[in-house]
Amino acid sequence: MNFMSNREKTSLPPATLLNPVPVVMVSCAGKNPQDSAQRPNIVTVAWTGTVNSEPPLVTISLRSSRHSHGIISATGEFVINLVGRSLIRSCDYCGVRSGRDEDKFAVCGLTPVAAEGLRYAPAILESPVNISCRVRTVSELGSHDLFLSEILAVSCRSSLIDAGGKIRLEKARLAAYCHGEYFQLGDLLGFFGFSVASPTAYARRMQGKSGRKKSRR
Amino acid sequence: MNFMSNREKTSLPPATLLNPVPVVMVSCAGKNPQDSAQRPNIVTVAWTGTVNSEPPLVTISLRSSRHSHGIISATGEFVINLVGRSLIRSCDYCGVRSGRDEDKFAVCGLTPVAAEGLRYAPAILESPVNISCRVRTVSELGSHDLFLSEILAVSCRSSLIDAGGKIRLEKARLAAYCHGEYFQLGDLLGFFGFSVASPTAYARRMQGKSGRKKSRR
Repeated sequence: MNFMSNREKTSLPPATLLNPVPVVMVSCAGKNPQDSAQRPNIVTVAWTGTVNSEPPLVTISLRSSRHSHGIISATGEFVINLVGRSLIRSCDYCGVRSGRDEDKFAVCGLTPVAAEGLRYAPAILESPVNISCRVRTVSELGSHDLFLSEILAVSCRSSLIDAGGKIRLEKARLAAYCHGEYFQLGDLLGFFGFSVASPTAYARRMQGKSGRKKSRR
Repeated sequence: MNFMSNREKTSLPPATLLNPVPVVMVSCAGKNPQDSAQRPNIVTVAWTGTVNSEPPLVTISLRSSRHSHGIISATGEFVINLVGRSLIRSCDYCGVRSGRDEDKFAVCGLTPVAAEGLRYAPAILESPVNISCRVRTVSELGSHDLFLSEILAVSCRSSLIDAGGKIRLEKARLAAYCHGEYFQLGDLLGFFGFSVASPTAYARRMQGKSGRKKSRR
């Protein structure tokens, strides 16, 4: 098929331009955490995503040179800790410093806590949501290794769960990563299915979203 | 190691709680696009991510029941189209309707255009950034199949490229998906490395970000 040309666009070399992406703090620890090389560590990861719903599977990609790469390869365990606005400075810091040189939990004033379903990797107490993961397979892709992993358990800050048992994740003020910068989530634009929802359903779902502007329908 | 308990958290069953995630419109077309079953189509995907930097690799996950799954499996090609605020309604629509039943390009008033480096799949003219992808491998994970894919080319709306050749992606007003809702990116919180940047570098990088509040350092 001869499509028309992509006018008003500029061609760029192939690059990792998918945006925005998540930015999360991945925590881990070795089998002998008294050894400073295996102490609880945090690495910041933007190359992560959900890849399957049933069973729930995620991936993280790590350069083999990263200190956490060795720890996670040895234990097959890690925790994905979601990052809200209040954690963004620690999140950035854990992406530029190495756990070989310092105890990032201590430097950032963060607290390693037991992660449900895991034996070695701790979760970060200060993160609103901790996702316990077990590695299934590791694939060498070039600059990064892909850890395809199963979600074993989730822990959510109790204050984010409303009286009806629904997770109110918008209260966590989560951040995303876009082309080298961190942004807080802003205006609510809609919900899954809003484009085909009845006016009544639309009004009900978009009501009561405090502190956010509604998009015009 | 005996970590302290994850107090103030509630345990939840394993679920796809990684948030926020990207939300993109994936475009494709069959080898015989005159056949209505192979016409240009769009499917909305949130299970996507960058998995490798060199070479640039991405994944998308699709249920095998999706119409686009068959098309992409046959051609090995698709385009990831980034989604700004103005596209969010079409983006949602393409996630709930099937290309088996209607021409989503036509219904949404979108324009299929040639995608650099690809033979069959079109890009969406109205999207600010088109990422041409070729499938390397497909893995069946359960509910979804994972398409590990190479980025062959990128096309960016020329108005997003500044005089110095830098992509100003913040002007695209991109959206993210978080726990069933679409959000526009909001406040700028920092840039990669801001936590260890000099005050001078910090001030320079955070200046001139029009329309966004700066986070306190």
